[in-house]
This record gives sequence, structure tokens and C-alpha cells, in this order.
Amino acid sequence: MSKFDLIAFDADDTLWHNERLYTEAQASFKRLLGQYQSPQWIDQRLYQTEMHNLEHFGYGIKAFALSMIETAVELTEGRISGKDIQAIINLAKEMLAADVELLDHTAETVSHLATIYPLMLVTKGDMRDQEMKIARSGLGSYFRHIEIVSDKSRENYKSLLQRHRIKPERFLMVGNSLRSDILPVLALGAWAVYIPYAMTWAHELAEPPPSGQPGYYEIEHLGQLPALLEGIDRS
Amino acid sequence: MSKFDLIAFDADDTLWHNERLYTEAQASFKRLLGQYQSPQWIDQRLYQTEMHNLEHFGYGIKAFALSMIETAVELTEGRISGKDIQAIINLAKEMLAADVELLDHTAETVSHLATIYPLMLVTKGDMRDQEMKIARSGLGSYFRHIEIVSDKSRENYKSLLQRHRIKPERFLMVGNSLRSDILPVLALGAWAVYIPYAMTWAHELAEPPPSGQPGYYEIEHLGQLPALLEGIDRS
Repeated sequence: MSKFDLIAFDADDTLWHNERLYTEAQASFKRLLGQYQSPQWIDQRLYQTEMHNLEHFGYGIKAFALSMIETAVELTEGRISGKDIQAIINLAKEMLAADVELLDHTAETVSHLATIYPLMLVTKGDMRDQEMKIARSGLGSYFRHIEIVSDKSRENYKSLLQRHRIKPERFLMVGNSLRSDILPVLALGAWAVYIPYAMTWAHELAEPPPSGQPGYYEIEHLGQLPALLEGIDRS
Repeated sequence: MSKFDLIAFDADDTLWHNERLYTEAQASFKRLLGQYQSPQWIDQRLYQTEMHNLEHFGYGIKAFALSMIETAVELTEGRISGKDIQAIINLAKEMLAADVELLDHTAETVSHLATIYPLMLVTKGDMRDQEMKIARSGLGSYFRHIEIVSDKSRENYKSLLQRHRIKPERFLMVGNSLRSDILPVLALGAWAVYIPYAMTWAHELAEPPPSGQPGYYEIEHLGQLPALLEGIDRS
């Protein structure tokens, strides 16, 4: 018998590429403002604006677009042209319309695990944006539950598990963010598998759990997950 | 025994004022662009931009802000100043931080009905924004379930009822939008109570159901709901 009643996955940068959409848009943004400021200074001020706006705007592409516009106004001392403002809005529209590109091993791992465990998708950010990505990914049918939350706090995981009547010790979460997918889950006494992604937004950075933390695993890619789960279930 | 397993409420402009936040922001927006265009023309172009952007941005204040910015760039042929762009972003922040003002009769009706029926809140729009309003309203604890959906389509109501294992004929929805709260619910064979609000966003306008439509009721304010439900349950 399995140790798990539910295996949950983060989506962005765990199942499909996401951060690089932001990185690419930010590169275009820096080219746009290149005549006014250095790339390093633009990066720094944009991040400050994003952090300052987080309480107002939350996560997601629309929040990012508004923070880019605000940063552009500020860094050009109001001299930004209407054309460039429109170019920033168009960057956001391109991001929202972008194809969903699955990471290596996603398709076969998810379809295989769905035959063994009930699967859940737990993602944060703008609901509409996430729903569109799930639809475009073609993976929706493998997940018994799809949860889009405003923030992946310990409290939100706790109420999510209560709502689904799942005990923490029978829940495992897989994701690429220590801050959002791993640490709050371990804090509840559940299991967590960390799969680092090549790029991490500064806001998501966190210290890994202490070595030997029960329930914590790190793997290199999703293709290694089935063997890991099998090993845990046999142990 | 009651005819209903669940009474659901829309939130914006059903339990608390919302549309007037948009109307007020739009009035400030028209003052901002007053030197360039007439108020009527600004209204018209903003609505067109919002409709065009709906597929990209969905509903909510951030979407509204991006559409205002895009409209401002267009209507000023790019001459809008950085300062005015920042003023538009600040309008959005003020909207997001605004107090939640309950409609008359909301507090006593909801607290009373919660002692008789399981209540659900069904609202659409930006999740973070809606969560903050629910928290600020002080009403959260009266609702057994809170559902924030990206769109109030017939399909979304159907899957919501399936998820909660509620039969349509034992579900009643209360709301101020014929398009979002009433027609899709009636189409499923459920009950719907329409409470018109003073202002309706053009996008939400729809024809009322044919007279004599089973399960459809219209009342003037939330204070009339308990007597209506009592009457139905006794019938």
C-alpha cells in the first residue's frame, strides 16, 4: 500500500517553463529603457517596484506589467513615450498568449504517475492565466484536483489539506521553489521533493532545509520522480 | 425540510458596493484626459479596449488599469505624460486598497441565513483582490464555501455543483448580474434570485429571463430574501 493519498505538483517551472518568459520580457524591457539607464540599475529598480507592489497587485503577468510601467515612468523621470508604454503592454500580452512548453520528462512522468496516485496541481498566481496554461499544457486530465491559490503559505496548504481531508503525513508536494513548494509543506509534517530549475525569481529564493530533514528529497529532474516514490513506498 | 442544500451569493454589488469604485476611477481617468478628448469618447474607447483585452487580461482591477493605460496612450496619440500614467496606476492602487462597504441589509441577512442554510460565496475576478475584499467585509465566517472563479459560465457552475455534489434543483444563487449570476444558473435547472444594483457594467447587461421562468425571482434588496426563501420552502 502506498504511503501517499495525494501527490501534488507545482506547475510553473516544475511541469512547464515559465520564469524564462519573465526573463525574456525583462530583457526586452531593458532594451527599451537602454537609452536612459544601465541594465543592472533597471533590474534592481524593477525588483524593488515589484516587491513594493506585491501587497497591491499580487503575482502574475498583469502585476509584472504594471510594475514594469511604473518602473519605466520612474527611471525616465516621466519622459517615457506613449509608444514605449504600449510596447510594455504588448510584452504582457505576448507573455499571456505564449505557448506552454513542457519541461523534459513532464508528459511521461505525469501520465505514468496518474495511473498509480491521485494527482493534484497546486499553483499560485493569476487564476485566468493559470487556467489558460493548464488548458494549453494538455495535462489537465491527469490531475484529479486543480488548486489555484493566491499564495503558497503554510496556512493555505493547511486549509487545502483539510478541505480535501488529507493527512499531512500522506501528502507529498513536488516543486521548484523552496520558499513556496518545499518549506511550508515540510513545516506541516508532509513530504516534499525539490527539483531545482535553472532560473529562480529572487523573491522565491530561500535556504534549503537542514540536511537530514525528514520527508525532504531533492532530485535533478522529473524523470527521477517515479523511482523515488517507488523507493519510499517500499521502504 | 428545506428545498435547498446550498444558497449561493455573488459578492460584488450583491453583498458590497463595487461598480462604483470603477465608476469613480473612470471619472478621474476622464478628468485626466479631459484636455485631449470628450468624456463620452473616452468612455467609449475605454470600453472597446476593455472588451478587446478581456481574452488577454480577464476581469479585475489590474486588467482595468492596463486597459486605462492603453486607452490613454491611444487617445493622446502617445502624448500622455509619465506623470499621468503614474496617476492611472495610483487609481488602481487606491481601488485595491479601498474599504469594503456592505450594501444595506447585507450583514443581518447573511448572518441570519447562515443559521438556516449552508451558504456559499461565488465570485469572479482576480483571486487576490477578492480574497482581500472577503477578509475586509467581515462576512467570511458565514460562508461554508468560498469559490473564486475566472468566469461565471454555465460550465463553471456545472462543475462547481458537481464538485460539491449538489443537485441543481437544490441550489439557489443570489446576484445582481443577469448575465453571470442568473441566466447560467437557470439554464442548469437551478434557482436564481435577481437583485438589481443601481449601476451595471455594460459587459454584464443581458435580457431578463422570460416571464414565468420556473425558479426565477426578482427582489429589490437583500432584506427581502429571507421571506422569499421561507415562502419557497413552505410552498
